[in-house]
Amino acid sequence: MRSVMPALFLGAIENMNGELAVGIDLGGTNVRAALVSPRGEIVRTSECRTRPERGSDVVIDEMATMVNTLIKEQGSSRDSIVGLGVGSPGPLSHRDGVIYKAANLPGWENVRLRRLLLERTGLPTLVDNDANAAAYGEYWVGAGKSTRHIVVFTLGTGLGSGVVINGEILRGHFENAGEMGHMIVVAGGRPCSCGQNGCFEQYASAGNLAKHCMARIRQGQQSTLREVLERDGEFGAKAVAEAAQAGDDFAAQAWDEACYYIAVGCVNAQHAFNPQVIVLAGGMTKAGSFLLSAVTKHFRKLCWRLLDDAPDIAISVLGDDAGVVGAAGLAWAAHDDSV
Amino acid sequence: MRSVMPALFLGAIENMNGELAVGIDLGGTNVRAALVSPRGEIVRTSECRTRPERGSDVVIDEMATMVNTLIKEQGSSRDSIVGLGVGSPGPLSHRDGVIYKAANLPGWENVRLRRLLLERTGLPTLVDNDANAAAYGEYWVGAGKSTRHIVVFTLGTGLGSGVVINGEILRGHFENAGEMGHMIVVAGGRPCSCGQNGCFEQYASAGNLAKHCMARIRQGQQSTLREVLERDGEFGAKAVAEAAQAGDDFAAQAWDEACYYIAVGCVNAQHAFNPQVIVLAGGMTKAGSFLLSAVTKHFRKLCWRLLDDAPDIAISVLGDDAGVVGAAGLAWAAHDDSV
Repeated sequence: MRSVMPALFLGAIENMNGELAVGIDLGGTNVRAALVSPRGEIVRTSECRTRPERGSDVVIDEMATMVNTLIKEQGSSRDSIVGLGVGSPGPLSHRDGVIYKAANLPGWENVRLRRLLLERTGLPTLVDNDANAAAYGEYWVGAGKSTRHIVVFTLGTGLGSGVVINGEILRGHFENAGEMGHMIVVAGGRPCSCGQNGCFEQYASAGNLAKHCMARIRQGQQSTLREVLERDGEFGAKAVAEAAQAGDDFAAQAWDEACYYIAVGCVNAQHAFNPQVIVLAGGMTKAGSFLLSAVTKHFRKLCWRLLDDAPDIAISVLGDDAGVVGAAGLAWAAHDDSV
Repeated sequence: MRSVMPALFLGAIENMNGELAVGIDLGGTNVRAALVSPRGEIVRTSECRTRPERGSDVVIDEMATMVNTLIKEQGSSRDSIVGLGVGSPGPLSHRDGVIYKAANLPGWENVRLRRLLLERTGLPTLVDNDANAAAYGEYWVGAGKSTRHIVVFTLGTGLGSGVVINGEILRGHFENAGEMGHMIVVAGGRPCSCGQNGCFEQYASAGNLAKHCMARIRQGQQSTLREVLERDGEFGAKAVAEAAQAGDDFAAQAWDEACYYIAVGCVNAQHAFNPQVIVLAGGMTKAGSFLLSAVTKHFRKLCWRLLDDAPDIAISVLGDDAGVVGAAGLAWAAHDDSV
């Protein structure tokens, strides 16, 4: 009978029902769960340490408990929860809901995450990789909200990416599309832990920026970062950004070089996918316009002249919430497809 | 009334009707038109020189005449022709059916190809870029026949590419996706005519292979190709392949280097799109297994070790027919979507 009601009235009823989806962002350090409205608003959230060394069974039990507790605390009926989406490190199979293995979850192999969560929560469950979840979040209610085609680069320890084409995550035949961090941008270049050489990730991730700065300083490079390194034994991309902004020449050059390579990756994403927006996310985006202005400057210089199809480059709107909101968004999309 | 007939009966009637689609491959040198069956068989074809300097109106008139003559010669009724697809050099707009401009069609600018052909043939007409048409042909009835996700590289004067995702051409927001020839694979590398540096096309196309070999020989490089250059004033990738196979060290090294870069492009296509098959097409594939074995060797060496998602690499099955068959295939697909 629903279909004869006017759309406006229908919307009102759905709000009265208070339907929600659950999103989980499973990381190597923390697990975060949230109840998310059909508009992408987080209405309740909880977080715990992952401690993956406890084994997948223990962690998945705890994830299920978090979900069940959130629903209870919200006072929602189970029927009003449309589904559960999980963003997880991979490689994994979205189709089968299985984590093959994950660098950040040592010892986890062939974990049937979807089935185990489904059994423990009773909710329709889906699993996707964390970069896809974050990309979907930005597409749904973030920096790509009004578009149908976006690419998201997550500039963290590694460099993840997710691609949304016509409003859907691009998966490919082996369900591993959009792994732009392992595009080769310097043929024969730096060795990557993946076994290739010259991967985008080696030149443009926060982790590799810090790593290469530390190596150069240990080789004798002058920089104000030397103090930080001697004091703390290490530093991250944040320290490089701060030193660069404070006028340290070496840090400024290293930061600019990373931004140049991020722009190279944007050029490649432009030609591969022709998105309307490329969204930069992850740790490095804490530097805000200091990142965006340098990347945009290089991108404009690098860009081809054949056709004006350059995408906008934008900083993530959802920040650390992208994964959990996007995972819930995927659950909403699966629910909408099924009704 | 058709919709009430059982599908089997409908199919039988369609076969009796002998429905066909028209494909046109519009190149800078030749125009080829063909009547193509629902199974991708060419049933009648004709060809003429393009001579684009005559202007777009004259050439389009001739294209329409070719189509009308083909239909007449075949003894088909106009109603039995489901549509006309054109593969054309670009950049162009598939949505609007307009060629913005094309390096191979000097002087053509903002040519409303779809509308002009529609007016002159009365057939439902669509326009796509030549690499997309070729990719669709290989996907439909060629090297990617049993798959849903393929990438095609056309190794010619330049390096075109087309991407089929879930059985559909990937277009992107600006309708220019899958331009993999202008992915940057050597950041800061060789200048490209597109305005970028280090484009895949500069290292892996037949045209650039020949160009760089000629430049090296002019600089004094020893090679049996010197004779050819002095005799003819130039040579192409075919001569490089022949010299390499005949034991010329320089040619062998140059050929192997091009194959290495083609493999780099395959790695990048793997991570971007995760296709089941990457199809090599265009002039260089005339070398057959001499090309394929070298590309495959490098690809296996370059490949990452994180997940076994390496695509097959295959040589085009349709060869020079890919464009005309693919253009007709797109017309078939548009027809099937519309009924």
